[in-house]
Amino acid sequence: MSTLPLPPYWAVIFSSQRSNTDDAGYAEMAEKMLTLAEMQPGYLGIDSSRDATGLGITVSYWESLQTIAAWRQHSEHLLAQEMGRNTWYQHYAIKIARVERSYSFSEQDALP
Amino acid sequence: MSTLPLPPYWAVIFSSQRSNTDDAGYAEMAEKMLTLAEMQPGYLGIDSSRDATGLGITVSYWESLQTIAAWRQHSEHLLAQEMGRNTWYQHYAIKIARVERSYSFSEQDALP
Repeated sequence: MSTLPLPPYWAVIFSSQRSNTDDAGYAEMAEKMLTLAEMQPGYLGIDSSRDATGLGITVSYWESLQTIAAWRQHSEHLLAQEMGRNTWYQHYAIKIARVERSYSFSEQDALP
Repeated sequence: MSTLPLPPYWAVIFSSQRSNTDDAGYAEMAEKMLTLAEMQPGYLGIDSSRDATGLGITVSYWESLQTIAAWRQHSEHLLAQEMGRNTWYQHYAIKIARVERSYSFSEQDALP
């Protein structure tokens, strides 16, 4: 999981249902977008999971609303978004949220 | 995916890595906690995904910080949390965030 600074920072919560279409093209684009996102100003980290039914949640973390807006308008990302709507997703929902608190647990911490 | 009111509301982003231990006990408790969460004051919805490697993201949505705090302190939930740390999770991270904006796409909307 991503190592992140102390709050506050911002989260983009992307919940999506994959179509049954074009697994290879989707995987290639997902990898490309991940690499590209990591290069953007203000990018802090990402966590992603997709289950066997194709329901996925990806949360990316950002320094500010401005850096989220810039990534949303990135030309290659815009193309990926359009292909997502046309081909890869049955539906998705995006929420933009300001992270106020965080805490974590690791079993290493719990060793006697 | 959950149908939610217009923002603002709150999100609890729970990212976790399952241990390889006690799948049946974990599944039973997860189902029980889901049912119990839905009964709590201020609960708005939940989205959850876990991939084949055991990496999961669950985002639950709440009306207020107060209702999140009450659920966190619920006696049965406290027991589940303790069992999670002792048995079911290698590690987890929790972020509490205020949802400011939301939007969504459905392929039905895109039909000509």
